[in-house]
Amino acid sequence: MAKFLTNRDENYAQWYNDLVIKAELAENSVVRGCMVIKPYGFAIWEKIQAALDRMFKDTGHVNAYFPLFIPKSFFSREAKHVEGFAKECAIVTHYRLKNDETGKGVIVDPTAKLEEELIIRPTSETIIWNSYKNWIHSYRDLPILVNQWANVVRWEMRTRLFLRTSEFLWQEGHTAHATMEEAVEETERMINVYSDFAENFMALPVVKGYKSESERFAGAIDTYAIEALMQDGKGLQAGTSHFLGQNFAKAFDVQFTDRTGKLDYVWATSWGVSTRLIGALIMAHSDNHGLVLPPRLAPIQVVIIPIYKNNSQLESISAVAKKIKADLESGGISVKYDDRDTNKPGWKFADYELKGVPVRIAIGPRDLENGTVEIARRDTLEKETIPAATIIDHVSKLLVDIQKNIYMKASEFKEKNTFNVDKWEEFVNILDNQGGFIMAHWDGTAATEEKIKDETKATIRCIPFDSPGEPGKCIYSGKPSKRRVLFARSY
Amino acid sequence: MAKFLTNRDENYAQWYNDLVIKAELAENSVVRGCMVIKPYGFAIWEKIQAALDRMFKDTGHVNAYFPLFIPKSFFSREAKHVEGFAKECAIVTHYRLKNDETGKGVIVDPTAKLEEELIIRPTSETIIWNSYKNWIHSYRDLPILVNQWANVVRWEMRTRLFLRTSEFLWQEGHTAHATMEEAVEETERMINVYSDFAENFMALPVVKGYKSESERFAGAIDTYAIEALMQDGKGLQAGTSHFLGQNFAKAFDVQFTDRTGKLDYVWATSWGVSTRLIGALIMAHSDNHGLVLPPRLAPIQVVIIPIYKNNSQLESISAVAKKIKADLESGGISVKYDDRDTNKPGWKFADYELKGVPVRIAIGPRDLENGTVEIARRDTLEKETIPAATIIDHVSKLLVDIQKNIYMKASEFKEKNTFNVDKWEEFVNILDNQGGFIMAHWDGTAATEEKIKDETKATIRCIPFDSPGEPGKCIYSGKPSKRRVLFARSY
Repeated sequence: MAKFLTNRDENYAQWYNDLVIKAELAENSVVRGCMVIKPYGFAIWEKIQAALDRMFKDTGHVNAYFPLFIPKSFFSREAKHVEGFAKECAIVTHYRLKNDETGKGVIVDPTAKLEEELIIRPTSETIIWNSYKNWIHSYRDLPILVNQWANVVRWEMRTRLFLRTSEFLWQEGHTAHATMEEAVEETERMINVYSDFAENFMALPVVKGYKSESERFAGAIDTYAIEALMQDGKGLQAGTSHFLGQNFAKAFDVQFTDRTGKLDYVWATSWGVSTRLIGALIMAHSDNHGLVLPPRLAPIQVVIIPIYKNNSQLESISAVAKKIKADLESGGISVKYDDRDTNKPGWKFADYELKGVPVRIAIGPRDLENGTVEIARRDTLEKETIPAATIIDHVSKLLVDIQKNIYMKASEFKEKNTFNVDKWEEFVNILDNQGGFIMAHWDGTAATEEKIKDETKATIRCIPFDSPGEPGKCIYSGKPSKRRVLFARSY
Repeated sequence: MAKFLTNRDENYAQWYNDLVIKAELAENSVVRGCMVIKPYGFAIWEKIQAALDRMFKDTGHVNAYFPLFIPKSFFSREAKHVEGFAKECAIVTHYRLKNDETGKGVIVDPTAKLEEELIIRPTSETIIWNSYKNWIHSYRDLPILVNQWANVVRWEMRTRLFLRTSEFLWQEGHTAHATMEEAVEETERMINVYSDFAENFMALPVVKGYKSESERFAGAIDTYAIEALMQDGKGLQAGTSHFLGQNFAKAFDVQFTDRTGKLDYVWATSWGVSTRLIGALIMAHSDNHGLVLPPRLAPIQVVIIPIYKNNSQLESISAVAKKIKADLESGGISVKYDDRDTNKPGWKFADYELKGVPVRIAIGPRDLENGTVEIARRDTLEKETIPAATIIDHVSKLLVDIQKNIYMKASEFKEKNTFNVDKWEEFVNILDNQGGFIMAHWDGTAATEEKIKDETKATIRCIPFDSPGEPGKCIYSGKPSKRRVLFARSY
């Protein structure tokens, strides 16, 4: 166990925070609630971005960029949107500083006050639909399939690195369609893109489903979400895709002429995932030794560490190591050869375990004699000695195997910790003592949902798409229910 | 000539603005001074980003992300920096909105006032060096070679799409070093990366040189710049690299223990280019038909347009076109096959000329009969008919040739419009009547520099690295000078 990490089983929250800091992923900045994403953490985000961006483009989307600032009045246009979004936000009121009269610093110039305050975007539906008004006239201009990679700000009072910060990085897709059917199809397409990404890249099994009305995005007709289970038994919403109906088109008066010549409002979707995914990645797989990264998102997939007593040994080992590095890299594998003389091998072993590098190769003088290398996998911590000649093939297969194994482990954890519950005492008991996903009946009312939340802190994470019709009685009110929904405490 | 564009030779500024709008690169947003970068414009930025990011990583840099907000007091820490930067900026003073009492909208909640105002970053030296203080203790922690891709805000009063906007996208490198020599070397390395990028990707010849003291970055010991000549005879600063000495380390108290155990302040550089490069790209190469994009930055390198009278013709042509598309794409060339039936071929020809697609392939019924295609290059507008069987080889070579030709044309323009001038009347005459780069002697004083600027609007763009020692007399004051410097009016 890494000595400088809090034990995961004793204090999960502190373990998480220690890990983010010690693995050099991110740190709190001097600005309240804003984080600095350090190079190693940002390299993971770059991997996430590259994979998602490819998936967005493969489904016909293009990127664009809209302003950081949104006029205050825009938030009042869509009635529900203002309730859900415009309250806790960063507000720009002035545009100039001037020298303090004492000469010691700068102060806000009171004469440089904006006529209308600008809000730093908490999400961009309003400013984007205000632009779409000029882009869309006819059905020929549709669909518009635009995505934006951007920073957004929501003034959070209680923040946690990656999971909830005042400023965060995300992507937000904003699409416009001629028909309701097409917009609904897009909403589904994108929640599927997200679940594919979560499962195939993050090695994270997720539940896809509808949000209940009270958990919907402010301004949406329907919100689909992917929900993942963390190792402490809490749920984490990893991505959402919203069917916005004609709400924003009506709020910003975006109409088009359809094929029959008739004017109609445009149909919309929006969808997004954020740097929060890095938090999910950490919490789903890591252990007391540090990060466990799935190979497909690991900035360094293989590290090679030389074990030597003198320079002549190092030289011989380096020759072999560099050849292996070049061979692996030519196969598209990212490799670091760490021959720094400032730290001992044992320290390096622990450091790359902490950083979750999937495969470690160690080469010592005896390996040179025997034509072998020692190879260790991060997920199981197993080591074996193999002939150096087979390394390329071995590592390629190992990376695939590790990716699969991490997914299987998370999947088994989720299965084991998903419970069908029919009694209120059991519901409360599971939440209090072990956590997990609870599939239970619900009477469909916001009132019951709120009472359950008040009494247990559990919320309806989603109404799973694949939840079969199954008559039952609401876990709380006893009233009739048509299907089970997914409850959990959550991040 | 594209009818909807203003003639470039009649009104260059209007031609530029028309082109940006009509080619769907960007548009002004409802927020003063902020632009919307539309998908086609953003696709160019993605090409720029990808190429530069590769070059940064190949020179050892990594990416990270720092907060959007900077505490107001940070700007006062570095005396010159506050003078140069902190004045025209966006200032966040509040963090909450509330419902208007009339119920008609939202207003700023006066109780949610920040204790210290936050500035939207105009550049990030201060917030980054405040972080580096915690990252750097020993020479072992150095160098730090970090880059950030981000949005920044400078509250500009007169804005022009891409060239000068209140919000823009850029990258900013911020490096920390143990020695002055190493930091100077880094400053040089990055101006060379920028000039390589400008010449090899943008097909834009540049002059590398030092900025005069009055044109230096606020807080820098030395600023290197690359300067390019636009078709209207004005200069455009396309990138800068700053040697910051120990100024920011001192302002934020960042010291390290060197190899001998002695404490010293850290040496710094910073360097950046922005979405302004897209403006340079447009202004350097485009013509009265529209954009001319160098193939290495063109989002679409080849467009294929079918010429047909009926569906059966279209089907036969499509079979050939799709084969050509697949073959070209497998060679790494980006291709669009435009078989939309909503627009006629002539309209499409003009539209792709407007959008600067380097190569156009047209295929009609007669081509099918003859086994040929018609191929047109955007840079010279030349057309030729070639055997379809040779298309892959032909297009590959053509793209290289177009890239080279665009560079050669810009290079000849720059040579032809760079003048060695020794008489004041000639200096003024050139600026007033034809524009261009003027190499002239300068007495080295800020006073003379300012007088020249006041009288002619020309500034010292840079003191070229390769300007040979050549004694002479200042063009303005007649005082002795050791070398010529580069003057121009500029963007």
